[in-house]
Amino acid sequence: MSGRLFIIGTGPGNPLQMTPEADHAVRQSADFFGYKPYLDRLNLRPEQTAHASDNREELDRARAALRLASSGRTVSVVSGGDPGVFAMAAAICEAIESGEPEWRRLEVTVVPGITAMLAAAAAVGAPLGHDFCAISLSDNLKPWTVIETRLELAAKAGFAMAFYNPISKARPWQLGRAFEILRANLPGQTAVIFARAVGRPDQNIAIHALQNANETHADMATCIIVGSAETRIVHRENLPPLVYTPRFLRSEPKA
Amino acid sequence: MSGRLFIIGTGPGNPLQMTPEADHAVRQSADFFGYKPYLDRLNLRPEQTAHASDNREELDRARAALRLASSGRTVSVVSGGDPGVFAMAAAICEAIESGEPEWRRLEVTVVPGITAMLAAAAAVGAPLGHDFCAISLSDNLKPWTVIETRLELAAKAGFAMAFYNPISKARPWQLGRAFEILRANLPGQTAVIFARAVGRPDQNIAIHALQNANETHADMATCIIVGSAETRIVHRENLPPLVYTPRFLRSEPKA
Repeated sequence: MSGRLFIIGTGPGNPLQMTPEADHAVRQSADFFGYKPYLDRLNLRPEQTAHASDNREELDRARAALRLASSGRTVSVVSGGDPGVFAMAAAICEAIESGEPEWRRLEVTVVPGITAMLAAAAAVGAPLGHDFCAISLSDNLKPWTVIETRLELAAKAGFAMAFYNPISKARPWQLGRAFEILRANLPGQTAVIFARAVGRPDQNIAIHALQNANETHADMATCIIVGSAETRIVHRENLPPLVYTPRFLRSEPKA
Repeated sequence: MSGRLFIIGTGPGNPLQMTPEADHAVRQSADFFGYKPYLDRLNLRPEQTAHASDNREELDRARAALRLASSGRTVSVVSGGDPGVFAMAAAICEAIESGEPEWRRLEVTVVPGITAMLAAAAAVGAPLGHDFCAISLSDNLKPWTVIETRLELAAKAGFAMAFYNPISKARPWQLGRAFEILRANLPGQTAVIFARAVGRPDQNIAIHALQNANETHADMATCIIVGSAETRIVHRENLPPLVYTPRFLRSEPKA
């Protein structure tokens, strides 16, 4: 007997940014695995069971969810944002590849969600309106030297950039170092957006020039967007500025 | 008297992937601007007016929407996917920057949506589960040489890649050339996903090795995801394979 596994994204936290498709998956599921703050966003019925876990146990959590789904239950694994962007979908795939043969027979459905960078970009205009990249600044899962190389190449390519996992208590200096690398490769005036808790009641957006950007502007709940050399700020009276990266690029980037 | 402007994303086409926030904006708006197939996705009331236009008139469309909103109407500008990713939000910001002073006094709200690459990734597993970039292959808005440089740098950086606007009648050879550049920089076995019409009734997903990928696999409605050298394919009996890029990277990429 085989159950079913959904891997869903709740979006950044505003319930109006969670899709009906994710909502349907929640209503169909009996068991829920995920980081507690994400599970707390769901309005579960009394007979639905939340299996909350710490944020740093993705592979154990994936295996527990697969085991339960294989026993015949309908299970949702829950990520904030989109489950495919630095989140649970890759962990589930990895667990299936290395795990029990019956896990390959499970029906697995990944339900996309609004990932943090899209909500952060929307909150200020369109800083990701041209080519861009998304980089996790966490060196828990890859060597820091790789991250440094990627930052340099992304700046040289003229990509706008979104940073996930920019800083934590265990990783205090990496973000400051990332800004140093970018300052060596991009104009000091390049716009940097610090979008904290986007879509949630405590949302806070700050825009700094790259030359003044530093790690004190961010915490674990911050998504950072670094513009390209082409990114523009449109000032407005009595309204927050709009930040956008033009669709057009007339010549080779200068950076 | 000042109106209001929403810039909304419908998601890739499956109505269950459009957020309640976008739906609320639609219900509040009197006038709608956008490419006709996107406007056709909305269930407008008889008193709501659709101003459909061709897909290649973004700036004119932006100005028309701003003019009407400034006259006091509540207007929605509609993109497929997410309005901030190769879509209308940047065009509206550009029109505001270069346009009438009163356009800077308008309340403008960008409502994020599920962008094509997230739905395409979800349909096959988690190919964007590690650092990645999004590149428009259209050389209508930037020189082709810039695109070539970006492809090379993205491959060297070890990014998975999503390609928007991969091909059109007016741009027949660019995608084939892009694959040539990638073949010079990535293993021939690298997974390439051609996701056509994701979330729509005619959805079609094909996975090819980079060495066999060519422009005949794509059309205007295709979002292409190119894995990194680390991307893996998990084969399953009687189910489509899962494609994912592992969260872990143990050393410098080989590519």
